[in-house]
Amino acid sequence: MLKICEKIQPVDKSIGNEVRAYLDTLTKPIGSLGMVEELAIQLGEITSSRFPTVSPPGVIVFAADHGVAGEGVSAYPQEVTVQMVHNFLNGGAAINVLAKQIEAKLDIVDIGVAGEIVREGLISRKVRYGTGNFLKEDAMSPDEALEAIQVGMDVANDMIQRGAKCLLLGEMGIGNTTSSSAILSVLLGENNLERIVGTGTGISVQQIKHKQQVIKQAIENRHPDPGDPLDILAKLGGLEIAGMIGAIFAAAEKRTPILIDGFISTVAAVLAVEMCQPIKGYLIIGHQSKEIGHRRALELLKKRPMLDLELRLGEGSGAALAYPIVEASVRILKDMATFSSAGVSESTIS
Amino acid sequence: MLKICEKIQPVDKSIGNEVRAYLDTLTKPIGSLGMVEELAIQLGEITSSRFPTVSPPGVIVFAADHGVAGEGVSAYPQEVTVQMVHNFLNGGAAINVLAKQIEAKLDIVDIGVAGEIVREGLISRKVRYGTGNFLKEDAMSPDEALEAIQVGMDVANDMIQRGAKCLLLGEMGIGNTTSSSAILSVLLGENNLERIVGTGTGISVQQIKHKQQVIKQAIENRHPDPGDPLDILAKLGGLEIAGMIGAIFAAAEKRTPILIDGFISTVAAVLAVEMCQPIKGYLIIGHQSKEIGHRRALELLKKRPMLDLELRLGEGSGAALAYPIVEASVRILKDMATFSSAGVSESTIS
Repeated sequence: MLKICEKIQPVDKSIGNEVRAYLDTLTKPIGSLGMVEELAIQLGEITSSRFPTVSPPGVIVFAADHGVAGEGVSAYPQEVTVQMVHNFLNGGAAINVLAKQIEAKLDIVDIGVAGEIVREGLISRKVRYGTGNFLKEDAMSPDEALEAIQVGMDVANDMIQRGAKCLLLGEMGIGNTTSSSAILSVLLGENNLERIVGTGTGISVQQIKHKQQVIKQAIENRHPDPGDPLDILAKLGGLEIAGMIGAIFAAAEKRTPILIDGFISTVAAVLAVEMCQPIKGYLIIGHQSKEIGHRRALELLKKRPMLDLELRLGEGSGAALAYPIVEASVRILKDMATFSSAGVSESTIS
Repeated sequence: MLKICEKIQPVDKSIGNEVRAYLDTLTKPIGSLGMVEELAIQLGEITSSRFPTVSPPGVIVFAADHGVAGEGVSAYPQEVTVQMVHNFLNGGAAINVLAKQIEAKLDIVDIGVAGEIVREGLISRKVRYGTGNFLKEDAMSPDEALEAIQVGMDVANDMIQRGAKCLLLGEMGIGNTTSSSAILSVLLGENNLERIVGTGTGISVQQIKHKQQVIKQAIENRHPDPGDPLDILAKLGGLEIAGMIGAIFAAAEKRTPILIDGFISTVAAVLAVEMCQPIKGYLIIGHQSKEIGHRRALELLKKRPMLDLELRLGEGSGAALAYPIVEASVRILKDMATFSSAGVSESTIS
């Protein structure tokens, strides 16, 4: 669909097979490192290298506002998006702490925050001042959606240019579980919103019902084409979701592993795969979010998340918590001894 | 039961409550970091500190042989225990790679390997040359079990003395899933060995059946007292299991968090708790092993593991993979901004 899709190669399965065979020569029972070994194999496939590198990692947090926040769907007022961007730039948010722990580069991108933010260190690429309220109007135009995707590509390309070997994607935007739930319900063809819409940042049962009604009505009003991911994206919005889609495209084109966070970034990943199937092989799912829609989104990707820690924060926090396991998988590959080099007897079972 | 139990304090629930209240002032939706927050609270309770420290971590791998290996219960010959100890000392095993990643101190202890090993860097505290074959005789005497527990205490005390702030326990010993399965079946009163005995290092279905029969017969022959954990330990063995029990005691006495690995170290943890109930609050379970008995062992502790990566290696590998999340939890506590310090609006829902 997008032109860049033509440049994205399928992952390299033959290298994956070589990595698998090599893992079986290392001094451990065959397959005994479970998903860590599967990760090593996938990283080989993604990078087309038998000994992939994933450090340093790079975290990109896309921040944007949602007009639908005006419908009272969040536990927090819309100004929290601006306030949290300042918090990111001051180093006080969870993602700052977790990015520092894994020695990641960290970029904060204003791709559509509703307020004005002028701060050193901020990547200012505002496409518009928040999306339109999709209950009443399209969240954005198709051109704006494409522009936001381009911003994501630019920022990710720059991050990779500066040396990032693994891309971790996060987001901040009051109202964005509402946008993501709406997109997911269209992609799944799921009319029962109770199976998709959860507590978000922490709303009451009554507010959840209201949120479900808003989404249901909005989808009726917007009637997005379920077969057209760009139409869904433009109508139900999420400038930060569009940014993450662009970043996923850029990383896949550069054969860079992409570590997806929770619900919102997984919805971006599903849209990216809908736009370009080979993307799928480049995606690693960091964790299973507590947000109920996340499990449904993962069904579409048929991918198993690495962690299940009942997180529901976003910002890329779950991706950052999962990263050390990604790093472990390449270290296992590079640094372990083989049975023959270590003089250890192999299994008597062939 | 053991004298040291008198010195072990219950964990400090009041500090836990203070930590919980403080977490709710940090710039994130309340509870949105899920198990990471629960970990921070538990670490506060363990260390009796509002801002606990867990680095540097210290990994201790106890290596020992099992006489029951002579019954053909493992995929590997017994000499692999000696070979793997050399591999640990050469830095080529999975735990070496993972310990290095988390910048852990690493001690390898010969607490009962069947062969002679003279190597610099090895902590030689051999209690005997492997246990007796518990199908035919007691694995060890009660005095030997107590001596091995003392070795574990000494080694852990030394590790803590040298600065380790979080203890990770691992083991190596051909035949030790057989010993652990036998111990667990007695503790559970479970006669159906199919619900406990798994593939270990990777044996065939036929060998699993044989392993189950060996265990069943051995328990009949040894008739350990289900209410006497020392009797169970001595009769069904595991010098490395005894060593881990001692290390758990020492760490709990020093209010040092203990990160448990998989099946075998969890069985050691269950025995330690049976010997001294307050131990339980000091235990953190690193991961859910693929070995089927592990789930049963965790039922006894009523603890949820942090990771579920289908590991079945041992050596402390799962504990080491989980450690970065433990570290993340204390960093979140120490380094995140509060709503008031960051000028971020709190939830409109009280």
